[in-house]
Amino acid sequence: MQILLTNDDGIYAPGIAALKHHINGLGHITIVAPDIEQSGVGHSITFGHPLRIRPVYLNNEFIGHGVNGSPADCVKLAIYEIMKEKPDLVISGINMGSNVGIHILYSGTVAAAVEAAIMGFASIAISFEISDKYADVHSAAKVARTIIERITKHKLPKGSLLNVNIPSLPPDRIKGIKITRQFAHDFKETFARRIDPSGRDYYWLIGTDKTAHHEEGTDISAINEGYISITPLRYDLTDNALLKKIESWNWEGIA
Amino acid sequence: MQILLTNDDGIYAPGIAALKHHINGLGHITIVAPDIEQSGVGHSITFGHPLRIRPVYLNNEFIGHGVNGSPADCVKLAIYEIMKEKPDLVISGINMGSNVGIHILYSGTVAAAVEAAIMGFASIAISFEISDKYADVHSAAKVARTIIERITKHKLPKGSLLNVNIPSLPPDRIKGIKITRQFAHDFKETFARRIDPSGRDYYWLIGTDKTAHHEEGTDISAINEGYISITPLRYDLTDNALLKKIESWNWEGIA
Repeated sequence: MQILLTNDDGIYAPGIAALKHHINGLGHITIVAPDIEQSGVGHSITFGHPLRIRPVYLNNEFIGHGVNGSPADCVKLAIYEIMKEKPDLVISGINMGSNVGIHILYSGTVAAAVEAAIMGFASIAISFEISDKYADVHSAAKVARTIIERITKHKLPKGSLLNVNIPSLPPDRIKGIKITRQFAHDFKETFARRIDPSGRDYYWLIGTDKTAHHEEGTDISAINEGYISITPLRYDLTDNALLKKIESWNWEGIA
Repeated sequence: MQILLTNDDGIYAPGIAALKHHINGLGHITIVAPDIEQSGVGHSITFGHPLRIRPVYLNNEFIGHGVNGSPADCVKLAIYEIMKEKPDLVISGINMGSNVGIHILYSGTVAAAVEAAIMGFASIAISFEISDKYADVHSAAKVARTIIERITKHKLPKGSLLNVNIPSLPPDRIKGIKITRQFAHDFKETFARRIDPSGRDYYWLIGTDKTAHHEEGTDISAINEGYISITPLRYDLTDNALLKKIESWNWEGIA
């Protein structure tokens, strides 16, 4: 099995190293990841400047290909330019921090998996909730391996991907797995306004306290309750119900 | 009516100026847009560095608020920090270049409208196909005004937005309006590999020839055929059909 491994925390991030270590033996692994951290870049792509691919070494050992672009760029370059054989599975992660609810849209980790799904490849995004409770990415990577083994027993429909979130708990305290839908409400993230030493305003985005959100059956409730959340996603944003409705609006005489 | 106007081509872009000019009289307009072009940034948000808001003047006239961030950042800042009254309508555009098919996911223009929808506000993304056939953004802005007038006669359901694409044609050659779904297939965009003066490889993303794509009922077919395309979108990516299916997979004993 050919596996493409990418992330949005950058090629030197602990999450990608832990995952590579723990999925060893599942297949041939190619790592293509951003040179530097790309958190929150969403599904950005690079066409305003050229992309470079450079071999990356750690302790004199080749670990993968670094790209001066976004996670989605990495997937495109990996599949079109770097990998000799096409991947059987694309894995994006492990992201340090959950990607649930509307954060799915902001996430470079999920965008890489979405890009792979668009290109017709089976893909999974894996994120690990970070908290002061627990932060051992190696235990998350072990859990991730078991999930990957289960998933690869099945065929994912073309164009779909799985978004996996692992709660910030030791493995023996994780309650199990829930198959969930995306929590589709605003997290109401606002800004902190501060004054810099020159007297000018600046604004920091304030993250939400996700543990405050509950809605049965959603990704965020699952991890809040101590379950692994697996949400199947697709990249077709069409609102089919609204489509039927607005067809009957008056569109005569506009052009 | 309070209108928030933003874009991803930057606050000085011709598309936002043309739209502001032609929707004059529809309501009170507040412009909040990125300082510089942000095309292809997708739904990126900024939390790695602080954001600044600066008043922007053109020919000594105040035109709006410039932000050193993404289109989605602009919408958040506009609504939480800048506008005294909440917007009745958020308009993102006019983007110079269509945003159809999977390009919806890469688009900063659409992401701004999605962000507004997440926050519960009625929103529209407007893009103008650019070609060597025709490129008068003022005629597109006139068409956009009529569309906006029609849309504001109705109430958009919370969380939905409309993605409008105007074909690259003079108004009298536009055939009408089609209500469409997103073209949900890969555009098969690849890379040009070049050698720089130092002998090193670099890669440019090559855009697709969108006129080659046809699928009845989709956004891309509509503009290829000379129609204005209006696609209702929502930001819930859950694949509900797959959710039902994978619930029956074996998830026992993982954690």
